[in-house]
Amino acid sequence: MGKKLTSRNEDYSKWYNELVVKADLAENSSVRGCMVIKPYGYAIWEKMKNQLDKMFKETGHQNAYFPLFVPKSLFEAEEKNAEGFAKECAVVTHYRLKNDISKPGKLMVDEKSKLEEELIVRPTSEAVIWNTYKNWIQSYRDLPILINQWANVVRWEMRTRLFLRTAEFLWQEGHTAHENKEQAISEATLINDIYAEFSEQYMAMPVLKGLKSENEKFAGAEETYCIEALMQDGKALQAGTSHFLGQNFAKAFDVKFATKNGDLDYVWATSWGVSTRLMGALIMTHSDDNGLVLPPKLAPIEVVIIPIYKSPQDLDKIDKYVEPIIKMLKSSGISYLYDSRDTHKPGYKFNEHEIKGVPIRIVVGPKDIENSCVEIFRRDLMKKEIISFENISSKIDFLIEDIQKTLYNKAKTFRDNNIREVDTFDDFKKIISEKGGFVLAHWDGSSETEDKIKKETKATIRCIPIDNKSVSGKCIYSNKPSNQRVIFAKAY
Amino acid sequence: MGKKLTSRNEDYSKWYNELVVKADLAENSSVRGCMVIKPYGYAIWEKMKNQLDKMFKETGHQNAYFPLFVPKSLFEAEEKNAEGFAKECAVVTHYRLKNDISKPGKLMVDEKSKLEEELIVRPTSEAVIWNTYKNWIQSYRDLPILINQWANVVRWEMRTRLFLRTAEFLWQEGHTAHENKEQAISEATLINDIYAEFSEQYMAMPVLKGLKSENEKFAGAEETYCIEALMQDGKALQAGTSHFLGQNFAKAFDVKFATKNGDLDYVWATSWGVSTRLMGALIMTHSDDNGLVLPPKLAPIEVVIIPIYKSPQDLDKIDKYVEPIIKMLKSSGISYLYDSRDTHKPGYKFNEHEIKGVPIRIVVGPKDIENSCVEIFRRDLMKKEIISFENISSKIDFLIEDIQKTLYNKAKTFRDNNIREVDTFDDFKKIISEKGGFVLAHWDGSSETEDKIKKETKATIRCIPIDNKSVSGKCIYSNKPSNQRVIFAKAY
Repeated sequence: MGKKLTSRNEDYSKWYNELVVKADLAENSSVRGCMVIKPYGYAIWEKMKNQLDKMFKETGHQNAYFPLFVPKSLFEAEEKNAEGFAKECAVVTHYRLKNDISKPGKLMVDEKSKLEEELIVRPTSEAVIWNTYKNWIQSYRDLPILINQWANVVRWEMRTRLFLRTAEFLWQEGHTAHENKEQAISEATLINDIYAEFSEQYMAMPVLKGLKSENEKFAGAEETYCIEALMQDGKALQAGTSHFLGQNFAKAFDVKFATKNGDLDYVWATSWGVSTRLMGALIMTHSDDNGLVLPPKLAPIEVVIIPIYKSPQDLDKIDKYVEPIIKMLKSSGISYLYDSRDTHKPGYKFNEHEIKGVPIRIVVGPKDIENSCVEIFRRDLMKKEIISFENISSKIDFLIEDIQKTLYNKAKTFRDNNIREVDTFDDFKKIISEKGGFVLAHWDGSSETEDKIKKETKATIRCIPIDNKSVSGKCIYSNKPSNQRVIFAKAY
Repeated sequence: MGKKLTSRNEDYSKWYNELVVKADLAENSSVRGCMVIKPYGYAIWEKMKNQLDKMFKETGHQNAYFPLFVPKSLFEAEEKNAEGFAKECAVVTHYRLKNDISKPGKLMVDEKSKLEEELIVRPTSEAVIWNTYKNWIQSYRDLPILINQWANVVRWEMRTRLFLRTAEFLWQEGHTAHENKEQAISEATLINDIYAEFSEQYMAMPVLKGLKSENEKFAGAEETYCIEALMQDGKALQAGTSHFLGQNFAKAFDVKFATKNGDLDYVWATSWGVSTRLMGALIMTHSDDNGLVLPPKLAPIEVVIIPIYKSPQDLDKIDKYVEPIIKMLKSSGISYLYDSRDTHKPGYKFNEHEIKGVPIRIVVGPKDIENSCVEIFRRDLMKKEIISFENISSKIDFLIEDIQKTLYNKAKTFRDNNIREVDTFDDFKKIISEKGGFVLAHWDGSSETEDKIKKETKATIRCIPIDNKSVSGKCIYSNKPSNQRVIFAKAY
């Protein structure tokens, strides 16, 4: 597996980049800013996807699929949205290549195939979807529309990092249409709650729920609900957003419906998404200097069994010995790998599965068979113990639950220890630069102040907490009155 | 639901187009040649996808994800492949829009954002994947690589039809790497067998397995294995292809490995795919003048229950009456819909679920409660009968199995009745133009003859059957000797 990882203390960013590659999760491709998601990384994403998909369906959402391309004229229709994405768009201008006569075997763009109207590779699908919904909605009977799409999107980023910021990424985008404002807002918060539940229950990652400030909200939204997580280096990561779009897209695409009263009104909308960025959040929340650490609920392999043997006869015995363990894992629906490859030494396998974050490792050698036991290792605490054969099943059940819980509690303790209230801008600057974390501070509510604070400290408002108690105070920057603290942090 | 469908006899093509829209499967989008797959259509595709994914995983394949874009220089590397797709490529040339100063509120391509190298939106991913595999493969220990990707691809088609031929479509593409020719060929045939099994067992669609001729094989392949189905109008539809790529891509991308003997050799490859085109095949295999007909294994809703009521009290009684039926369906894992909407009349619901091909309909009114029975309707035969309450469970189990079987047998009888052997070109032309279907005829093996036959009759060689008995004869066109019959047809 090559040499050890750079430690987090030494260089957190380097540690992350190395880990993603060494744990076989993803790598950079030959296409600028686009990544290859490798099978092991993709298997984790599939587990996330399946669980989220289940949660969306349980709340009445259906999947559909809309075009990859957005004609420029549609893209322009909602001005703020267009403005927000115009600077990072991949643009298709031609539809054919031809032989390059000057270079045999090479191709060139056929100028005769220039499109009358350019196509934008979707950075998000509001435009193309609202132009479609327009034909689906006549009356209140057609509402609500609760649709989700699993898709790839492209945002031309200049500085990319695997999973965290890539030119192409995978995501889900929900797009819903409602009769009134209340229903749309309640949809947006329902989804934000689903995102929070998924983060906490499955990713074992505590999140704060809140609203984005004017500066940070989605281009074209009235309000953006979000969940924010804290990474081990003290930087925040926006893990999911759910937008109340008001009637902005309905107006841009002229989508009206006949209400129950017989009036005509514009439709109310939401959109919401999480992406492969969650992979970055998962990695940075739990992993350590030995590699990836995975919560069992999202681990492609929950249990790896490694036999220690010198002869084929030894392996035969171990094969038989572990048979009932494998049977038990299968019947409990626990994913496992019996890694009996003879091309690699046990030490190599230990290291590989450690760096790939397999939560539980069982090791069986001839001595264990004699003593009717196995060695069990839990990746999160890097602790091993000897367990008698008859206790394996209950031990594994315990570990699967306990590792999930332990990871969550550890992350929550870290997060809670890194939320600090400050009352002066000097303290603010000191904490942001020296400790990082979430900083709770009074703010006067203006974009101008937020911009200035960002310019001086690189910290932004991560969110305005939803269930915030109203407390009066003074803005740390402007000294103007404020009636609640908001959450600042430097962010990914 | 609007007026009736055009009948198949009247205009098969119009019938298909109307059905796709009326059954709520898909529609054309505002983007030329790209479709919107609506929730009901997408739910069928999801069922297909889940089953295929399971079959791929059971045979050792893993999913991964590769970039949407292919830099032109990579795209060019395998010449035949490049040539095959060059004329239908969406090309990204710029990465930014800017305000169009002459038209307030409008955007234009920012010429300063011109890419140094154009990016092709993948029409297929061999190039980008083999350029990646290059770094993954050093020795025989790294082989085989058995990877599949679920993705969207773009092929700029001039004449498009929903599901059958669209500029953007969804598919899976498998890309595997092997130590030797035998293993690669056995992978290609394994997958073709999986495609055939899926078509017959799940889609209830009989297929012929065979090899493509030189003219029809995939650009860049040594051999293309395929499955061919016959639609109700007598035209063939290629439902899946699995390519033995030889060492073509390994040579184009210089992918060598150290063999067990310590030599260096080029890697052997396969690629294989099925797409949303299968939706078109499914529709055209079973559906009738009343709308979609679905095999239960792929139906998003297997059973719809429709209450007939005049008062809320009636509905209450029916709710209670159907409760045990619903419980039984749930516990058997049968997908169902209790359609008690009060916004639509029963007749409307009957029509809607008929046109959407729900295999089984249960109707319950006050009379049925009195008589302790229900009315059960099977969509495939358009037949209804009264069943006593205690027999519902066994009746549904029977119907789910019987409808699946009946659909397959009906399609197989039709297909078998439309395979004809001919020995003269006159007979060939007559049958192709008057009856259609698969025509078994001797062919001299040359591309030239195939081209001429295509030009005169529009029929192409669909496949050279794999388990063909060798029979000597004379080519229907050139009279040259031939040692087996091949399958001709006009095709989608």
